[in-house]
Amino acid sequence: MALEVKDANSATVWPLSQVPAWDIESDVVVVGLGVAGGAAAIEAARAGSEVLILERASGAGGATALSGGLFYFGGGTPVQKACGFEDDKEEMFKYLMLASGKNADEAKVRLYCNESLEHFDWVVGLGIEFKECFHKEKTTLPENDDGLCYSGNELAYPFLTQAKPAPRGHKPKIEGDAGGLVMQKVVKAAQEAGAEIVYEALVETLVTDEQGRVAGLLVFVDRQPKFVRARQGVVLATGGFIMNKEMVRKHAPELLACNYPIGTDGDDGRGICMGEAAGGSIMNMSQGLLSTPFYPPAAHLKGILVNEQGQRFINEDVYHGRSSDAILRNQNGRAYLIVDDDLYGQTQALHRIAAVEETFEDLEKALEMPEGSLSHTLEFFNKHAEKGEDPLFHKHKDYLRPLASPPYAALNCSTDKAIFAVFTLGGLDTLPTGEVLRGDGSVVPGLFAAGRTTAGLPREGRTYSSGMSVAGASFFGRYAGRTAASQARS
Amino acid sequence: MALEVKDANSATVWPLSQVPAWDIESDVVVVGLGVAGGAAAIEAARAGSEVLILERASGAGGATALSGGLFYFGGGTPVQKACGFEDDKEEMFKYLMLASGKNADEAKVRLYCNESLEHFDWVVGLGIEFKECFHKEKTTLPENDDGLCYSGNELAYPFLTQAKPAPRGHKPKIEGDAGGLVMQKVVKAAQEAGAEIVYEALVETLVTDEQGRVAGLLVFVDRQPKFVRARQGVVLATGGFIMNKEMVRKHAPELLACNYPIGTDGDDGRGICMGEAAGGSIMNMSQGLLSTPFYPPAAHLKGILVNEQGQRFINEDVYHGRSSDAILRNQNGRAYLIVDDDLYGQTQALHRIAAVEETFEDLEKALEMPEGSLSHTLEFFNKHAEKGEDPLFHKHKDYLRPLASPPYAALNCSTDKAIFAVFTLGGLDTLPTGEVLRGDGSVVPGLFAAGRTTAGLPREGRTYSSGMSVAGASFFGRYAGRTAASQARS
Repeated sequence: MALEVKDANSATVWPLSQVPAWDIESDVVVVGLGVAGGAAAIEAARAGSEVLILERASGAGGATALSGGLFYFGGGTPVQKACGFEDDKEEMFKYLMLASGKNADEAKVRLYCNESLEHFDWVVGLGIEFKECFHKEKTTLPENDDGLCYSGNELAYPFLTQAKPAPRGHKPKIEGDAGGLVMQKVVKAAQEAGAEIVYEALVETLVTDEQGRVAGLLVFVDRQPKFVRARQGVVLATGGFIMNKEMVRKHAPELLACNYPIGTDGDDGRGICMGEAAGGSIMNMSQGLLSTPFYPPAAHLKGILVNEQGQRFINEDVYHGRSSDAILRNQNGRAYLIVDDDLYGQTQALHRIAAVEETFEDLEKALEMPEGSLSHTLEFFNKHAEKGEDPLFHKHKDYLRPLASPPYAALNCSTDKAIFAVFTLGGLDTLPTGEVLRGDGSVVPGLFAAGRTTAGLPREGRTYSSGMSVAGASFFGRYAGRTAASQARS
Repeated sequence: MALEVKDANSATVWPLSQVPAWDIESDVVVVGLGVAGGAAAIEAARAGSEVLILERASGAGGATALSGGLFYFGGGTPVQKACGFEDDKEEMFKYLMLASGKNADEAKVRLYCNESLEHFDWVVGLGIEFKECFHKEKTTLPENDDGLCYSGNELAYPFLTQAKPAPRGHKPKIEGDAGGLVMQKVVKAAQEAGAEIVYEALVETLVTDEQGRVAGLLVFVDRQPKFVRARQGVVLATGGFIMNKEMVRKHAPELLACNYPIGTDGDDGRGICMGEAAGGSIMNMSQGLLSTPFYPPAAHLKGILVNEQGQRFINEDVYHGRSSDAILRNQNGRAYLIVDDDLYGQTQALHRIAAVEETFEDLEKALEMPEGSLSHTLEFFNKHAEKGEDPLFHKHKDYLRPLASPPYAALNCSTDKAIFAVFTLGGLDTLPTGEVLRGDGSVVPGLFAAGRTTAGLPREGRTYSSGMSVAGASFFGRYAGRTAASQARS
């Protein structure tokens, strides 16, 4: 076998019998230093294991550092209480089962809800603060340092009829994106716990023994191959696969319509492929979170989304991932947001104006929709909105008002005209403990995984809430680290 | 390791080193006797290999025997020519790339189109006849013995704008379902070629050597374990996984809403699990063909499908799999077919009448839709239908007429009220040759697969055409059999 760096899709395993000698040894070897890998390293090191983190980039962060850094916590956190919100873990469980999606892993959802308060404390213990201030305006992420917000579909139909709403999006105390701050604190804690970090270390393949146990790995550091022994286990936390077009084409071709992949170069699926080569089973591979956030401004939620036929198709006040999923999957990627002059504002994603007209009829004509299509939709909407009602899609009355101040604008929310952000939600099948499962339900000895390398807490974009990825990756990353550290040393 | 029958989800591999002795030996061992396994056996035996077919049921047939037995052939078959239709393989290729779906395997589609005429001859050579008579009326399967029909979306928007339509559904000459006839001829040909068939033989697991080569398998015949050596290879042709609820829940949870799984007990995914355990990669697992065929009668295509909001959402003249997919995936599983008195007839699937009223307004009220929703949809549709136009969804003018003869009926096409048939379209990743691929793109030596055990010709229900499964399974089954027969004997 040749000692060369192959592309992610060619990941295979290296037989232990062909390892000439171990260049490096450690107890737990963590691959990837985003929040999942960092959390795994902290917990493994705190449990007394020697920990080595291998990160292919020249710095820490992964996709976490690119994110808003929101954590989905609930069940009555100090921040929720200080802001005057009641919550309990049963209502959180009801909501998170819906938010995880049709493919929800009940065991993971249950464990996370049961231990969410403990996980909050652990995160705070890293030095991450949350300001006890509720952010009232609906947004994708508070721009200021407010610590609490509604970050999903909690207040939107039909979710609010199925679980008592509470805001559970917890944002670390910093203006703007908090992902960088989260990673600073995670890296600091990992180093303080004694974990060693090697950057620019591209893990190429896992080493397995004759019984299929993962015994270590082959890594290229400064392009030099090194065999690394993992006495207790390897934790894969290498992110998802949105940067691997071949893999997206094979497993999630619908996501190819999205033009703005969210991730680092490391999100090329290499960890998933390595895990699969070692016997791990993959699942949920067709799913992703995709989004064209047409708010803020929150005023845009008072506009209406229409398809090419001029029909509404969703309550516009849902989480942007849900409305965007409906555009891509149900409306063939074509939609407009119709606002009036009072509501108009620049969206975050700078959606282009497709048409501006003084009357519904002219707007309909300008959008090349048949006479009586869009204009009927608008008249019907207005008639009911005046009464604070949306009999078709049940938008919340807070966002219901007639569109009545001309001119009227149509913002283009189609996949070929607007930014559609996307990342993947499929990967290795794992137990809540982080153990990687084979197709037959047995575990691959010595192998653990967390974060977007796995099918984790969030399983569907159409039901997703912000904060589920960072919360789930850190929480199950911790489990993976602890489980690895509890293994006998080989 | 215990010699016991485990459930499909526990499929693992049996190490060659732990095989006490081979009880049976053959060159090519085919698992499953539907059309894929039968075709593989015929070709392997004709190529000179000793062939053993193991079928878990007490008779041949698999899901093929339950099917209409339609073959999707094209490019100018004798039947197409005799019926006056022009076709060529490039137009067939354009259409089949669309019909395969977003995840189309271009190499498989190309090969099938290039060799479709040869495959037609091969099928005719089995003694399967096709009457040179075109079935004019749109249907899901000709009830009589007509040999040619449109069996997909060829004539429907947008397909007809992207590929020159030709009827390619070829039905064997028999009234009603032809799947049983197909399997009779296939079994006869397999036996004549010298293949041995053992029924009530449940294959439990594959046997692999230390290099991962599939060397044979463990089968239970009359509940007695037997180790079977496959000198050249094993061909998995065990069907899909629609009968395995756990597996559907894990990989295709949306399909759980369908109440009428199509398959035999054997469609429990065991072959897919065995292949995965031997190192094969799985793909396209979330996809299936689902259908609530509200026609025949073809007159129903002149009705309109509406969602719970009273909106139309598709051109009703598409293939039933496409309209049904739109109901389940895009309309939350809720829809009605609205017909007038002239169009009303009993559907194949006996859809229940949700309401019958004399006016649009009363129908709207009876269906608990808001005033001005469904009635507007009907008036809008009628206005344009009078001119032979459907500006919203481009239904073909042959199916456009105003709904104007009261009373008006709403047939319930919702997942919880109507029959929704379903089978899976995901499985092992294979080359066109039938070789099973690992995640890294290498092949699993000694392992081959075809039919619904693989991700084959059809990849998406929303674009499917009848005949793609039987045609693809038989065609790529033949390739799998020939490839296996070309291996050196171990």
